[in-house]
Amino acid sequence: MVTGFLSLFLIDWEANNVAKTILDGNLVSKAIREDLKKRVDLLKEKNVTPCLATILVGDNPSSETYVKMKGNACAKIGMESIRIHLPENTSTEELLEKINELNENPKVHGILLQHPVPAHIDERLAFESISIKKDVDGVTSMGYGQTALGFGKYPACTPAAIMEIIRYYQIPIAGKHAVVVGRSPILGKPVSALLLNDDATVTTCHSKTTNLESILSQADIVVAAVGKPNFILGDWLKEGAVVLDAGYNKGNVGDVDYDSCYEKASAITPVPGGVGPVTISMLLKHTVIAAEEM
Amino acid sequence: MVTGFLSLFLIDWEANNVAKTILDGNLVSKAIREDLKKRVDLLKEKNVTPCLATILVGDNPSSETYVKMKGNACAKIGMESIRIHLPENTSTEELLEKINELNENPKVHGILLQHPVPAHIDERLAFESISIKKDVDGVTSMGYGQTALGFGKYPACTPAAIMEIIRYYQIPIAGKHAVVVGRSPILGKPVSALLLNDDATVTTCHSKTTNLESILSQADIVVAAVGKPNFILGDWLKEGAVVLDAGYNKGNVGDVDYDSCYEKASAITPVPGGVGPVTISMLLKHTVIAAEEM
Repeated sequence: MVTGFLSLFLIDWEANNVAKTILDGNLVSKAIREDLKKRVDLLKEKNVTPCLATILVGDNPSSETYVKMKGNACAKIGMESIRIHLPENTSTEELLEKINELNENPKVHGILLQHPVPAHIDERLAFESISIKKDVDGVTSMGYGQTALGFGKYPACTPAAIMEIIRYYQIPIAGKHAVVVGRSPILGKPVSALLLNDDATVTTCHSKTTNLESILSQADIVVAAVGKPNFILGDWLKEGAVVLDAGYNKGNVGDVDYDSCYEKASAITPVPGGVGPVTISMLLKHTVIAAEEM
Repeated sequence: MVTGFLSLFLIDWEANNVAKTILDGNLVSKAIREDLKKRVDLLKEKNVTPCLATILVGDNPSSETYVKMKGNACAKIGMESIRIHLPENTSTEELLEKINELNENPKVHGILLQHPVPAHIDERLAFESISIKKDVDGVTSMGYGQTALGFGKYPACTPAAIMEIIRYYQIPIAGKHAVVVGRSPILGKPVSALLLNDDATVTTCHSKTTNLESILSQADIVVAAVGKPNFILGDWLKEGAVVLDAGYNKGNVGDVDYDSCYEKASAITPVPGGVGPVTISMLLKHTVIAAEEM
C-alpha cells in the first residue's frame, strides 16, 4: 500500500465546501516506484531480478513508443526487461510459440503482449495463451474472472492504476455510486468489477446508453474510459464528483473536458499526468509481485 | 434460440397502457427441453449420450433435493447422469481427485459440484479444478471471465436462465437500464455481465448500496438476486418495469414482494414457476452443448 503526504490530500467528502484536489498521477507513481525499487533490491539479494517481457508485433509507432517506455521504466528501478519485436507478417502460431517460450522461461516473471496486434492474428487466442502466473497485464479471461470474483492478483493495469489513485488519496468508495463510461475488456469492465468489489454501487455505461447525462448527474465517482476526446462535460456532473480520466487521445487529451469538469469536481485526474504514469507503475508492481511469488 | 407463442407475449414497451405479462418459467423450460430432447436423440444416433455428473458432499437435505431434481430432469429428456455422493468428512484433496476423475472420463460431458460444500473444504479450489470444457454450471473463474468478456459458452445457470426468459419473451434490453440487486459470483455478477453484453446500461447494487430505492425507481429491468424474502417492494419500482426474481427463500418465496411488484410491473416472474425451472433447463442445455462439441 502506498503511503506518504496523505493528510495533505484528504478530501472532506461530507462538507459542502469541498476541497479541490488534482489527483497527481506522477506523485502516486513516484511513491509506488520508490517502494518497488526497495523490493527489487531485496529480490536481487536473493539472485532474482524481476523481468518483464514485452512483445510487439508489427510497426505501429505509438505501440513502439509504449513498449520502449515500459522497458525504460523497468530499467529505472533495477528490473530487467526483454523486448521482443516480431515482424508484421508473424502468424498466430508463431506468436503463440514465442509466448509459450516466455511462459517456460524461468527468468521471465511477466509477459505483456502490446495491443493491438495486426488484424490477421487471433489476439484473443494469443492473450489466452499467456500463463496466468505471468499475466501481469490482466488480459487472460482467467485473470479477468479472478479479478471480478475478488481474488485476482493482476488486474488489467489501467483499472489497477485507477484503484491505486483512489487508495492513495483515500477517496471513500463503499456505498458511493460509481459510474464507469466504457466497457472494454481491459478498462471499463475490469474497473467496474474492482469498484464493485470495493463496495461501490456501480453503473457501467457505453455507446448504447440512452440517458448518460442523467446517470452521470448521480455519480459520486466517474471513470471515463470511452476513447472520445473531451467527451464528458462538467455540466453533466454532480457537484463534488471525483473524476478519473483513463482516456488518452491524440494531442494529449483525455475523455473528460478538463476545464468544465474541474469546476464541478472535488477531485480530478489531469491528462497527461493522471492515470497514465500510474498504469505503467502497476505493470512494474505486478511483475515484482510475480517475481516475489515465483 | 427458443421460439413459440411469442406474439402472444410481446410487451408493448412504448405504450402507456402496458400489457401485464407473467413470465412463465415452466413454459420457457418446456420449450427448451423439447428442443433438447431432439438434440439428445440426434446425439444418441451417433452413440453419444450426454451425461451430467453431479457431486454432493455431505448431507444437506436441500442440496440432496436439488441434486435429485437435476438427475431426474436429465432422465426425462434421455440424458444420463452420474450422482456422486461423498461423505461430510471428505477432504479437499479427495474432492479434487474425484473431480479430476470426472474431468478425464470421456463419458461425462458436464460436472456440477453442488454448492455449498462443508466448511472445511476449499470450495473455490474445487470449483477451479473443473475442466473449462465441462464447467456447465459456470463456476470456474475462467468460465466467468469468458462470459463477462463475451465469449463464454456456459454462463452460470441462473443468469443464463434469466437471459433465456428475456429472449423468449422478446423483452428489449439494448439501451435499457437494468438494475441487478446482488453481487454473488454465481448470480449478481454474471447476470450483470450478460445484461451489459446485450447492451443494457447496468447498475449492480448490494448490501452496501445506500440509495437502492432511488436507483430501482429508474430501472427498466430489475433482477432480484439478494436472498431476502419479499425484499423488493412495488413502491420502489418504475411503472412498467420488467421484474426477474431469482430469489428462492424458505416457503417458496422470492426476493420480490410479488403482489405489490405485480401491480407496478409490465412483466414479472412468479416464484415458484419463474426463474427456477429454467435454471435446471439451462444446466441440461449446457451439458447437451458440451456433448455436441466433444
